[in-house]
Amino acid sequence: MARVRVAVNGFGTIGKRVADAVAKQSDMELVGVTKTRPSFEARRAAEKGYRLYVAGANGAAEFEKAGLPVAGTVSDLLSQVDVVVDAAPEKVGRENRKLYDAAGVRAIFQGGEKSDVAEASFNALGNYAACLGKKSLRVVSCNTTGLARAASVVVPSWGVDHWEATLVRRASDPAETKRGPINGILPTFLLPSHHGPDVRTVFPDLSIATTAVVVPTTLMHVHVNHVRLERPPAHALDVVAAFRSAPRFHLFAPWEHVDGTPQVMEYARDRGIGFNDMMENVLWEEGVRLDGRDLYFFQAIHQESIVVPENVDAIRAMFHLAKDARESIAKTDQALGLAPH
Amino acid sequence: MARVRVAVNGFGTIGKRVADAVAKQSDMELVGVTKTRPSFEARRAAEKGYRLYVAGANGAAEFEKAGLPVAGTVSDLLSQVDVVVDAAPEKVGRENRKLYDAAGVRAIFQGGEKSDVAEASFNALGNYAACLGKKSLRVVSCNTTGLARAASVVVPSWGVDHWEATLVRRASDPAETKRGPINGILPTFLLPSHHGPDVRTVFPDLSIATTAVVVPTTLMHVHVNHVRLERPPAHALDVVAAFRSAPRFHLFAPWEHVDGTPQVMEYARDRGIGFNDMMENVLWEEGVRLDGRDLYFFQAIHQESIVVPENVDAIRAMFHLAKDARESIAKTDQALGLAPH
Amino acid sequence: MARVRVAVNGFGTIGKRVADAVAKQSDMELVGVTKTRPSFEARRAAEKGYRLYVAGANGAAEFEKAGLPVAGTVSDLLSQVDVVVDAAPEKVGRENRKLYDAAGVRAIFQGGEKSDVAEASFNALGNYAACLGKKSLRVVSCNTTGLARAASVVVPSWGVDHWEATLVRRASDPAETKRGPINGILPTFLLPSHHGPDVRTVFPDLSIATTAVVVPTTLMHVHVNHVRLERPPAHALDVVAAFRSAPRFHLFAPWEHVDGTPQVMEYARDRGIGFNDMMENVLWEEGVRLDGRDLYFFQAIHQESIVVPENVDAIRAMFHLAKDARESIAKTDQALGLAPH
Amino acid sequence: MARVRVAVNGFGTIGKRVADAVAKQSDMELVGVTKTRPSFEARRAAEKGYRLYVAGANGAAEFEKAGLPVAGTVSDLLSQVDVVVDAAPEKVGRENRKLYDAAGVRAIFQGGEKSDVAEASFNALGNYAACLGKKSLRVVSCNTTGLARAASVVVPSWGVDHWEATLVRRASDPAETKRGPINGILPTFLLPSHHGPDVRTVFPDLSIATTAVVVPTTLMHVHVNHVRLERPPAHALDVVAAFRSAPRFHLFAPWEHVDGTPQVMEYARDRGIGFNDMMENVLWEEGVRLDGRDLYFFQAIHQESIVVPENVDAIRAMFHLAKDARESIAKTDQALGLAPH
Repeated sequence: MARVRVAVNGFGTIGKRVADAVAKQSDMELVGVTKTRPSFEARRAAEKGYRLYVAGANGAAEFEKAGLPVAGTVSDLLSQVDVVVDAAPEKVGRENRKLYDAAGVRAIFQGGEKSDVAEASFNALGNYAACLGKKSLRVVSCNTTGLARAASVVVPSWGVDHWEATLVRRASDPAETKRGPINGILPTFLLPSHHGPDVRTVFPDLSIATTAVVVPTTLMHVHVNHVRLERPPAHALDVVAAFRSAPRFHLFAPWEHVDGTPQVMEYARDRGIGFNDMMENVLWEEGVRLDGRDLYFFQAIHQESIVVPENVDAIRAMFHLAKDARESIAKTDQALGLAPH
Repeated sequence: MARVRVAVNGFGTIGKRVADAVAKQSDMELVGVTKTRPSFEARRAAEKGYRLYVAGANGAAEFEKAGLPVAGTVSDLLSQVDVVVDAAPEKVGRENRKLYDAAGVRAIFQGGEKSDVAEASFNALGNYAACLGKKSLRVVSCNTTGLARAASVVVPSWGVDHWEATLVRRASDPAETKRGPINGILPTFLLPSHHGPDVRTVFPDLSIATTAVVVPTTLMHVHVNHVRLERPPAHALDVVAAFRSAPRFHLFAPWEHVDGTPQVMEYARDRGIGFNDMMENVLWEEGVRLDGRDLYFFQAIHQESIVVPENVDAIRAMFHLAKDARESIAKTDQALGLAPH
Repeated sequence: MARVRVAVNGFGTIGKRVADAVAKQSDMELVGVTKTRPSFEARRAAEKGYRLYVAGANGAAEFEKAGLPVAGTVSDLLSQVDVVVDAAPEKVGRENRKLYDAAGVRAIFQGGEKSDVAEASFNALGNYAACLGKKSLRVVSCNTTGLARAASVVVPSWGVDHWEATLVRRASDPAETKRGPINGILPTFLLPSHHGPDVRTVFPDLSIATTAVVVPTTLMHVHVNHVRLERPPAHALDVVAAFRSAPRFHLFAPWEHVDGTPQVMEYARDRGIGFNDMMENVLWEEGVRLDGRDLYFFQAIHQESIVVPENVDAIRAMFHLAKDARESIAKTDQALGLAPH
Repeated sequence: MARVRVAVNGFGTIGKRVADAVAKQSDMELVGVTKTRPSFEARRAAEKGYRLYVAGANGAAEFEKAGLPVAGTVSDLLSQVDVVVDAAPEKVGRENRKLYDAAGVRAIFQGGEKSDVAEASFNALGNYAACLGKKSLRVVSCNTTGLARAASVVVPSWGVDHWEATLVRRASDPAETKRGPINGILPTFLLPSHHGPDVRTVFPDLSIATTAVVVPTTLMHVHVNHVRLERPPAHALDVVAAFRSAPRFHLFAPWEHVDGTPQVMEYARDRGIGFNDMMENVLWEEGVRLDGRDLYFFQAIHQESIVVPENVDAIRAMFHLAKDARESIAKTDQALGLAPH
């Protein structure tokens, strides 16, 4: 079967990772990526052999001055692909959709867009089957992806009476140098926060309420979860075992001495997947506790990369490239160097 | 009636504030404070006219070299007072208790000590009456004080079925230059955290479960509260009104444009109480939401100062200096420049 | 003699401090301050009895809704004063100048404006006499003020062959929650930086070259100075003594245990001047070293407040309210609670 | 010729990187590494196939409990190697030296030790030839390595009359969660700082004076250099070209939009060398300026990795494995994936 031809529109934090991930899949072809201006990231794209297409008004002149070859415009790119992964800045995806519709290409949007940007919201473990063959999909945001994955383990295993989560959010990505705060905590006054309803775009029946604060870190989000279970297992170790056996979860044992997100990211650097990414939900065995029906657990979410494998699986769901979620996830994870399951 | 004679043992973050607070009370006399070595804080104590007593092995020599007069040793100080406020570093209070017992003086300990260091744990709004006449009291920690105050409003007004709180904790005080982390989040793996049981030293029957993370800020803690009420009021505005009418709560209106703890501390600097302290629980009107029986609210807690008025009230409870909590709180707050109620 | 009538246009970080400082001077009258929208700072202005005038397009409605009385527009305010202190955001002062010219009032601008916004650039210790009677003055920026003050001690005492300074700049003010970076260092690529030429608006003949980096702190700038002297004193202690005897310098002795800017700000909180400000250049005795003709010293500069007394003195210079810099500085410093000299 | 057998004693920040680097060299064999307790890093060592030897008193029990195979003790390891790279925490190397001497193995120490721990201090570009055949070497610290490399370009090209550098130092490594400060700047009161004399262990005749501050970042140090040249080139572009053509320098062009250390580290993640390291001195073309004889330039130094290739070259110098510095550096850099020259 011919490989699905993929464009990545926007080559920033998410786009560059999705491009790399697509390029590693045997059933996909990365046709090209877009960029609005030259930068070290554009240079890296060229060095990796990705064809660069120019987005925005500046045109190709700046790229040529920098010695970066340009293959055409966004329209040129769209005319050659089956699907475009939109990785534009938040809220721009909706605007871009017009281009995609005009070009008659399928599109995958990111979680910064509202859910009605696409036919369905997507999470591989959560609702792969419901997204088969869709013309447009929206991969839910990093925090929602983290929660949806966790729900995909907890809900079928023990049932959920009610889920509460406090999201302790990173204030900016590591390479963003303009955003703060430097020394403070900002509550998100929307109570409950928008993340709960967003999880329900994947798990429509889940009773979930979330709250959020922003804190001065760049590394990861941390979720503090408290879940009232319907049919609790006998022991917290059962919960640990269930997360350990699920794909896209990484658990640390106490003897690994990982006391927080700085150590998690250090592990990621040690492991050495591209960009030192941590695409799995990260849990700590010490940070899982079962108290009757009350399950508590922390999870750390790497905002830069957690949605990357989800974008790959979304393409598979869209084009029926795998027989089910499990097969797609296994393919994706193997190609990306994530732990096998 | 003679004023109660008070010593403050330890002149650090808490001690220097309690000393100032005691010095402002008409029914108390600050006899002296202790310090282990000269510092700018010792100099300020001298400039304020506080008598300095030397704690620790170094003796008076270093102080004299720095031009700071020394009035004697800790024992000298203890022999002249009715009560000592122990503001030593965490865990040292228990050791100090032997000195206090030997000197036959009453003692007030801080929340860093275990609850059995004293006859009872104290919070002015929470359990003043239960602490009357005690020989030793422990003022609960900053986070516990914040939660106990909030419970003292919520419990009698609407009843509490269950209280959940996630504590987003500051990693160090502003002047501590040795502690981190600089860029990360550290979960507290004890689940639920110790704060819930500590609140029950004041509200023994409260169903409460807390979780905690440490984040790289120095300014304040933020509590994310979710309370299942027994008899909810009609509207969130009723909750706002109840907090507004209680002492030691400060609420910000949306038009004040206070988006997080940096702005709260900026307000504190504008207000100009000593050390730019914020001794009240800080809430945001926007950050209070009622959804059926579910009450959500954020509160910010200034770890350096919130227990200061509590120490003053603890002395009053111990010596029957006020007829009830309300009178003691009113006296304390007026002397400290907190808002009247 | 009638007091000089002063308006403060802009009630942010600098404006609110200058307003308080002006209100404390016996030879000045604070007629009113301007604000574009209600905020906790506007509320504090009202609580302090400052008349609020509305700047910007929004008008008085929002203020009235918030219960804050409005006395009129900026034009109303300008019609009642002799001089306006412009404390608008950077670059807005130049625009405002048209208003001031139209109203025929004298004006004092801040260092964020280019030097040609006013007849002369001002620093009290540096060039008070040269600014007497001017119709408009620009108080140089916080970093330039810090350097100019230091030069006013060093140049006349020992002569300067050449001055090098690296400015380690704070990335945002404590209450700014939108600016970063959170975890990184940003070089200022202009080499040498603009600060050297700015110092020469006060000391035209000084040979000075500066460089700058921005770091993730909110508290203070730190200057690393290396000065090649023409006629060095015998010992570093002579340098310490000279700085100690100059106004607007604060030196810490080693026994005060102040290891960096967090402890400096803690001292400021202990001292208790409004907003816990530190209006002096801060030096450490340990941080002054003389090696032949080479003088090294660190100084910390509180970006929020160091220019406040300078604004007051600029008014005095403009209206001949003091016979010389020394008299003006002494008056200002006494009113503000700075150390006498 | 037989490969040199290498042990790495200490598998922390430096040790794990040196182990990886040694394992990649065709003329060296990594015999094993030591660790005091199990951790994720020990697990990664095992996963990479490195034999683990137990250092410290705890013995092998904890490792076995964690499922990590142990090959023996430090003594066992030392008996099998020609040279040990000591990567123990600062100041422990000197203690360890006794073990190495007793075992009769050559040793390479890190820059945290005093220079007399070894026969000579080493920097590959700076003094490779002077270190040939030594029994012990000390690779100078990260900051000193950065300065020595820069001097190795500047000194021979244009001569140095005098070198000034202000070192803006990171407060902790990214994975260290216990160190601060979180929001402040700490001057290093030793003036000039110890780095200048340390550079002279490599360039004995260089006139250099350094100063230092510590700032709340984990990513990189930044050096602000001002060099008075003896024979300046015609243009700053000549300086840029000289740095570009030297090994172990990485220069960013303006169009790459790298505004500070966060973006440098982002580039490092994009490039994808192990641990996302940046082993080169990083300069910005915009951050190089020549003004007559005065050369200014910024350089960023990745404290975690810059000394890694130097350790490899130190082994080569010790065992005469290359005919000169250039050959050793070229071999090392190719094996590590650094840019060719």
